[in-house]
Amino acid sequence: MADTVGAALIIIGNEILSGRTHDKNIPHIAERLNSVGVRLMEVRVIPDIPETIIRTVTEISAAFDYVFTTGGIGPTHDDITADCVARAFGVDLPINDEALRRLERHYANSDLDLNEARLRMARIPVGATLIDNPVSAAPGFRIGNVHVMAGVPKIMQAMLDGILPTLKGGRPMLSVTIRSNLPEGMVAAGLGDLARTYPDIDFGSYPAWTKTAFQLSVVARGQDAERLEQAALDVEALIRSLGGTPERLSAPLPGETVAP
Amino acid sequence: MADTVGAALIIIGNEILSGRTHDKNIPHIAERLNSVGVRLMEVRVIPDIPETIIRTVTEISAAFDYVFTTGGIGPTHDDITADCVARAFGVDLPINDEALRRLERHYANSDLDLNEARLRMARIPVGATLIDNPVSAAPGFRIGNVHVMAGVPKIMQAMLDGILPTLKGGRPMLSVTIRSNLPEGMVAAGLGDLARTYPDIDFGSYPAWTKTAFQLSVVARGQDAERLEQAALDVEALIRSLGGTPERLSAPLPGETVAP
Repeated sequence: MADTVGAALIIIGNEILSGRTHDKNIPHIAERLNSVGVRLMEVRVIPDIPETIIRTVTEISAAFDYVFTTGGIGPTHDDITADCVARAFGVDLPINDEALRRLERHYANSDLDLNEARLRMARIPVGATLIDNPVSAAPGFRIGNVHVMAGVPKIMQAMLDGILPTLKGGRPMLSVTIRSNLPEGMVAAGLGDLARTYPDIDFGSYPAWTKTAFQLSVVARGQDAERLEQAALDVEALIRSLGGTPERLSAPLPGETVAP
Repeated sequence: MADTVGAALIIIGNEILSGRTHDKNIPHIAERLNSVGVRLMEVRVIPDIPETIIRTVTEISAAFDYVFTTGGIGPTHDDITADCVARAFGVDLPINDEALRRLERHYANSDLDLNEARLRMARIPVGATLIDNPVSAAPGFRIGNVHVMAGVPKIMQAMLDGILPTLKGGRPMLSVTIRSNLPEGMVAAGLGDLARTYPDIDFGSYPAWTKTAFQLSVVARGQDAERLEQAALDVEALIRSLGGTPERLSAPLPGETVAP
């Protein structure tokens, strides 16, 4: 799609790779980016190893329109994301005056002191712009096309809210979900035909089992509301022709993004 | 760590990148691999685009001891993982006799027929060995160091159970979690000192807020139970010296893996 603005997400942290922490950021970032017409095209989860972070940031920032990172910008020794991003861009990482002011203000209002460890969070690569952190003050930053955010979901979400208006997206992907109880292998052939008929629509089928029932969700996604509606009607007709009862879960309106 | 056997996971599917489906496989795979001494070092989530899948499988299988993929091995047009892995290894993808027998047996016992779409699931790359699927018959496969599994968690988990005894791992990572209510910025300096004292132990600190309380979990991970215990005692001493009350959540026994 010529109209696609693509993004990648780099999740930095041993705690995701060890299984300790279950990532909750991917679906939120995917849906929020799509709402401004930016499509999440790849996610990488990588450990707190400087060479890996530097190599991944360098490679990924060259390959996508926008890059987002989560994790590794706190006060502890394993928070090395800012250092690595600065090295990836070949710039220094000094204390940033405005970041320092924000931290000073934040800690003046608390019973905590702005010690050396917390001061680390005021280090920002030369040439970067700050990303606001309305939750806990310590800012993220943007350098080039890379947006460095916190990993804690609440803080990440607040940062992303501030970033979204600055992105230049294409047309959002709209989606329709059609549910039935037909087995996947029964709709597969007809769905393949539809995929060939509608090269501009992305069809997926997702089986799910509950304790008592089987359900198949067919999801159609595309940027043009009229074409998508046509495709959705054809999916419903296909399901009826196979003896199933299609149930439309949501319908897109022009310009409106429907979370599938 | 010279003793580390490293693995990477490739999650294949537009539904994860669109935010529709929330991945539940990463933590399970991470913990199960660690139980046999294999360490998950990287995860990539990629879309159903043939070139992307082929490139990623080629690159990742050269970089890690073991590779696992989830998703894209069902009966529909967007199930292209087997095709792409075969192309990455430069081999054909014919109907496999044993895979066919398993599907025939499975569908003979159901009211479904083994139609053309379902027959796609019997196609296995030349030279691959089958991975059992005790849930829904259609097998995964292993070729080279790449293990191709289903994306549905229940099926993936059953396949992984069959794979684990075939892996040659190193020593599992053991872990201890020590909880307190100290702010992260207060323990940061001392934790950094410990990280320098114990280069063989991985220290992480993970703040969490509930509605009523703040908690900081310090996680120490390492392969040697005695060294880890020593490090854990030092973390507890650090927390006490700062006025906190450490709470040990779990203790590793030699040879036992503790999920942090």
